[in-house]
Amino acid sequence: MIKVSVMYPDTPAARFDHEYYRDRHMPLVKTLMGDSCKYYTVDKGLAGGAPGTPATYIGRCHIFCDSVQAFQAGFGPHARQIMDDIANCTDLAPVLQVSEVVVGH
Amino acid sequence: MIKVSVMYPDTPAARFDHEYYRDRHMPLVKTLMGDSCKYYTVDKGLAGGAPGTPATYIGRCHIFCDSVQAFQAGFGPHARQIMDDIANCTDLAPVLQVSEVVVGH
Repeated sequence: MIKVSVMYPDTPAARFDHEYYRDRHMPLVKTLMGDSCKYYTVDKGLAGGAPGTPATYIGRCHIFCDSVQAFQAGFGPHARQIMDDIANCTDLAPVLQVSEVVVGH
Repeated sequence: MIKVSVMYPDTPAARFDHEYYRDRHMPLVKTLMGDSCKYYTVDKGLAGGAPGTPATYIGRCHIFCDSVQAFQAGFGPHARQIMDDIANCTDLAPVLQVSEVVVGH
């Protein structure tokens, strides 16, 4: 199992509509990707490690797939539509990372 | 529910013992934290978003707790022992982030 993390670095003037991201954008991603997305999780940055510091990422999602190939097959054909929809909730450019799930839930 | 992400930024000369992290370190964290850690996940960086780029984080764990207070109560008394054990698998300094779990699994 792999996870693709899409992580939005926080900035002082960041716009990020957490409700839209949770209620509209991520369900759209799941619908478009179908079974190639086994499930996904979403989190909202609250704080950094040191007292009074902000979270590195204001919002993140993690898309869980059987393999990188499965992710690419499910995401690729809909990449444009998914990217276009992102503009509805944020102007931030995400950092992406592909990881092996070593210990899952 | 909140998650505390402990994320190790990759470097060209990074040492990171994924097996120790999975088999020894994280089980130690869970044992020490007890029920204040509901569960945890671990992942291993494979790749960045652009072709041929490395993952931002070589390894990460995410510790799930009912609240920030629950995390602090469970982690705080054992922080020194947990930090000391980290040296057994890496010299990297982690980036920490506390997040609200908006969509969990």
